[in-house]
Amino acid sequence: QASPSAWIDLEIPERVADLMEPVLGDILETATVQDAIEYLRAADHARQITYLYTTDADGRLTGLVVIRDLLLARPEQSLTEVMLPDPFALHARMPAGEAIRAAVHRHYPVYPVVDAERRLVGLVRGWRLFERQAIEITAQSGQMVGVDKDERVHTRLWQAFRMRHPWLQLNLLTAFLAAFVVGMFEDTITRIVALAAFLPVLAGQSGNTGCQALAITLRGLTLGDLDTYPIGKLLRKEAALGALNGVLVGLVAGIAMWLYATRTGAPDAPMLALTIVLAMTGACTGSGIFGVLVPVTLRRLGADPATASSIFLTTATDVLGMGLMLVLATTLVL
Amino acid sequence: QASPSAWIDLEIPERVADLMEPVLGDILETATVQDAIEYLRAADHARQITYLYTTDADGRLTGLVVIRDLLLARPEQSLTEVMLPDPFALHARMPAGEAIRAAVHRHYPVYPVVDAERRLVGLVRGWRLFERQAIEITAQSGQMVGVDKDERVHTRLWQAFRMRHPWLQLNLLTAFLAAFVVGMFEDTITRIVALAAFLPVLAGQSGNTGCQALAITLRGLTLGDLDTYPIGKLLRKEAALGALNGVLVGLVAGIAMWLYATRTGAPDAPMLALTIVLAMTGACTGSGIFGVLVPVTLRRLGADPATASSIFLTTATDVLGMGLMLVLATTLVL
Repeated sequence: QASPSAWIDLEIPERVADLMEPVLGDILETATVQDAIEYLRAADHARQITYLYTTDADGRLTGLVVIRDLLLARPEQSLTEVMLPDPFALHARMPAGEAIRAAVHRHYPVYPVVDAERRLVGLVRGWRLFERQAIEITAQSGQMVGVDKDERVHTRLWQAFRMRHPWLQLNLLTAFLAAFVVGMFEDTITRIVALAAFLPVLAGQSGNTGCQALAITLRGLTLGDLDTYPIGKLLRKEAALGALNGVLVGLVAGIAMWLYATRTGAPDAPMLALTIVLAMTGACTGSGIFGVLVPVTLRRLGADPATASSIFLTTATDVLGMGLMLVLATTLVL
Repeated sequence: QASPSAWIDLEIPERVADLMEPVLGDILETATVQDAIEYLRAADHARQITYLYTTDADGRLTGLVVIRDLLLARPEQSLTEVMLPDPFALHARMPAGEAIRAAVHRHYPVYPVVDAERRLVGLVRGWRLFERQAIEITAQSGQMVGVDKDERVHTRLWQAFRMRHPWLQLNLLTAFLAAFVVGMFEDTITRIVALAAFLPVLAGQSGNTGCQALAITLRGLTLGDLDTYPIGKLLRKEAALGALNGVLVGLVAGIAMWLYATRTGAPDAPMLALTIVLAMTGACTGSGIFGVLVPVTLRRLGADPATASSIFLTTATDVLGMGLMLVLATTLVL
């Protein structure tokens, strides 16, 4: 049983070698079943041995022996007769992520690790790979907003600052784009100041709708669902969902605008209400599409699909949502 | 080796019984080591047997026998001498999440499952629990914005709509709160329309800063880091990080406001710039604090700490960010 601190304080390593334990249970392939049983009887760590690994004279991994099979064999048989020849092995310099993908459908309790010459150099417990995978996945919601994969609650303030700050400056830069769009319509806002109050409503709704599509797409990429589900089908579904959610949320927001405009004496309350319904529908439809496109594009570019995805997405949804509202207001109301 | 589709199409079950396989390798505790070896030799599925489980006459689980120990024992010994008595077992009706937590520090390849009378009713492979855990964690970034835990890319449109829409309406309701705050300052915006363009900048920055703190807090709750790291310390760290990030991002935004105000002939450009710096610093500090408090409070209330956390957070950061900017502008500039 691993101590709780082994789970909590695990450093995030980059290579299989970092997850490796020393070899246990290696035996020359020329040994007999009886030799193997005697080896197990004499071994200090027999309880920790799950499989025996056979090696040749140069220490190269040649086979795997399931201990149960020793029971079922005759003592004088050679290990080469009961072993699984040329077993699956991880490479010491393989990135941990690649090892996890290789292990996902195998689920062995222990994996042998070999070097470039296929010499047996260590063992990796299967649960260490799964633990590593869980830690990797818990990083995603942070990565979406510019938190580094390696940051945890116990990361020091300065290190966290150094890793997060550049993304916040990027977020600011992209926010200026939205501000620039709003700025182009200063005249419209001066004449219908009610629109100012609905700027954060449009931005917030389209942002959240887009983040729903983004989260589902990322989940699909992570769990491999998108290996079999076509991206085009997902795009159409999220666009339809965005439109549907946008119309219904837009109707409520439109009514709110009608009441607000009437009360504050803004011009043409019905047309302002229509502006909100149309802008919300359009913005949420676009958000659904962007929510799928952003992580898929990041992956195509060779990046982690989660990286700053929420920052890129909200830039698009902000510009689209607020821009559409201001264009429509200028066209329909003024 | 499991087929890839077992991973991709896994339905998300709620109980240990849903992850269970039929019992393999159960043997009466009165048997001898020799009996057990003969049982293994005769078993159809010997290759799938990792441990033997001893039961009493009523079928109750009494012990676990490691096959390696059969090799090391004398044939005439009773299984009760080599077995691990009263082994750890999962309960068939236990929620899967609880079973995962119980298994996290054990990492056995297989767990026996018992019913209320401790009768052996099935087995659960350790990797099934880890797979279930990975699927659970990949749901988090969606849950934050109101996507149901069970939604995947292949979820049907209507079902996705039904699960997501209520949260979007809630998001709208909370957005009205921010709109209401902005609406209270219509007069200020009419006189300094440059502020309208900076509304989304403030909302976007404080929202993203808060989501960084939220993501790290959620990660800490998920990985158990916060069992040992005090919440108060995290709160202070995130407040400091928010302040630091806020000042630096605020300075850049303040310069932008100065240039923008000068060019558009807004009153008192330096004071407007100062307003932005102060508002950004205050809003980002508050966002850091809210980012920690939202998931911690959700958990204290007995809810999943991820549930709609981003919706609750951005409501707070929107009101704080834009409210602070408009209050300061009204006080300092007008």
